Amino acid sequence: METRDYDIAVLGCGPAGLSAAINATIRNKKVIIIGNEICSPPMNKAQKIDNYLGIPAVSGEELLGRFMDHVESMGIKIITDKAEVVSQEDDYYNILVKDAIIKCRALVIATGIPYRETFQNEEAFLGRGLGYCATCDGPIYRGRDVLLIAHGEEAESEANFMAEICSKVYYLPLYQNPGNLEEKVKAIDAKPRAIVGHDFVEGLELDNGEIIKVDGLFILGAETAPDRLIPGLELKDNHIMINHQQETSLPGIFAAGDCTGPPYQVAKSIGEGQVAGLNASKYVSKK
Amino acid sequence: METRDYDIAVLGCGPAGLSAAINATIRNKKVIIIGNEICSPPMNKAQKIDNYLGIPAVSGEELLGRFMDHVESMGIKIITDKAEVVSQEDDYYNILVKDAIIKCRALVIATGIPYRETFQNEEAFLGRGLGYCATCDGPIYRGRDVLLIAHGEEAESEANFMAEICSKVYYLPLYQNPGNLEEKVKAIDAKPRAIVGHDFVEGLELDNGEIIKVDGLFILGAETAPDRLIPGLELKDNHIMINHQQETSLPGIFAAGDCTGPPYQVAKSIGEGQVAGLNASKYVSKK
Repeated sequence: METRDYDIAVLGCGPAGLSAAINATIRNKKVIIIGNEICSPPMNKAQKIDNYLGIPAVSGEELLGRFMDHVESMGIKIITDKAEVVSQEDDYYNILVKDAIIKCRALVIATGIPYRETFQNEEAFLGRGLGYCATCDGPIYRGRDVLLIAHGEEAESEANFMAEICSKVYYLPLYQNPGNLEEKVKAIDAKPRAIVGHDFVEGLELDNGEIIKVDGLFILGAETAPDRLIPGLELKDNHIMINHQQETSLPGIFAAGDCTGPPYQVAKSIGEGQVAGLNASKYVSKK
Repeated sequence: METRDYDIAVLGCGPAGLSAAINATIRNKKVIIIGNEICSPPMNKAQKIDNYLGIPAVSGEELLGRFMDHVESMGIKIITDKAEVVSQEDDYYNILVKDAIIKCRALVIATGIPYRETFQNEEAFLGRGLGYCATCDGPIYRGRDVLLIAHGEEAESEANFMAEICSKVYYLPLYQNPGNLEEKVKAIDAKPRAIVGHDFVEGLELDNGEIIKVDGLFILGAETAPDRLIPGLELKDNHIMINHQQETSLPGIFAAGDCTGPPYQVAKSIGEGQVAGLNASKYVSKK
């Protein structure tokens, strides 16, 4: 798998991520933004924003457009991809995306409003039969039975991959009209009710009372909670814990924007993004 | 003296103060900004600002102009005045300016980079013969001798006022060419070295070794340190202590921008101003 080197990786291309990126670029750092197709869905839908000082009375879409123009004018690279997992190695971090490993010395998390759990007891089963990345953990379940709960159609290719190596693959879509599933993948037309199991996952109970016994359960396509993406990252009130320098509990990892807490507002995100971008740059320079 | 009522008063018209004001106005609050003639001297002097997302490559002066336009388009009142003292009365605050009392339910402090002391031991003599507002404390020294150390010419009118009520008035300007002094005011052409006294001020030692004996000493025209302007306001590392909601140690008083700590940057100030403005509005609405 290809490895790409950067000084600073920014997760998320909303206002906080873009602000972090321009500030780190000004400090002469090599920056990559790992973002989504629509950079900030809530901002993009806002009819009128009148409280971002200096640019009165604009639509969210127009303001986001101006932000993107600013970032592009500075030649900052944005890739549309999902960070699957972040791991530490010596004094840098590896971020696994779909077909590459992004290597960086510092990281700014700007992933937006915090993750909401699919099940209340997800935490207890995490790493005990429950996972968020079939591509990563799939091989553990070779020849066994798995069930994938999917928030969006991008999970279909993961189901098809699992069908190649697993004995049985169940697929429970939380969206309308799943399309591209291999014949071997068995689609389920019901809602999930609860994870069944004691120490490890043993199956999934559906809202019709049926229990499907499996060895592994994946929840796909929902945003991964930041502390699951980056083990050891401390949260506070369900948001990433930060100090006034936007430092998280882990060295070299900074956070900014909605993921650090309310109010969920553009200027707040941009201010925090700036502080995170400048401090991440300082951190890299000290190394 | 005239009293004027507002929901929220903002001290300072730099980026943080202006952002607080537009956000509180959007929340339907009656807002006044108490500012200076040049709203942010450091920003105004900046040749090029390229890290305020959405407005690339502008001079500080131009960006500040756009900020002022935004504020004016919302009909927010700005007065050019200096807050002399802030006191609490029931559930509102009184701010003494030159010729009026501003009454407000919540306050946003956005006064910029923190105050630097003229003397290392100022704190020990404060209220013991040392003051920052001759107009306020003057009457205490009726018929006695005082010395005024002045950072700028706006202190000259205070010296002339003191000449009317005091026995002797010495005036030590820290700037070039003092102009409009009454005959009774004795100008000193030397630099201050140290405050003389034990429990109370007894005089001032000059750099030529001379000691001028006085009963009262005033330091004028330097920014008043926020915790002296508002007794009880807690500092941390010489900046106003805040939490992530921009709340200070006092109820209804919020702070934003450079006065809360580094980095001293426009976007950081605007983000904090927004959070302070929104939370001050929430505080007023709850009352």
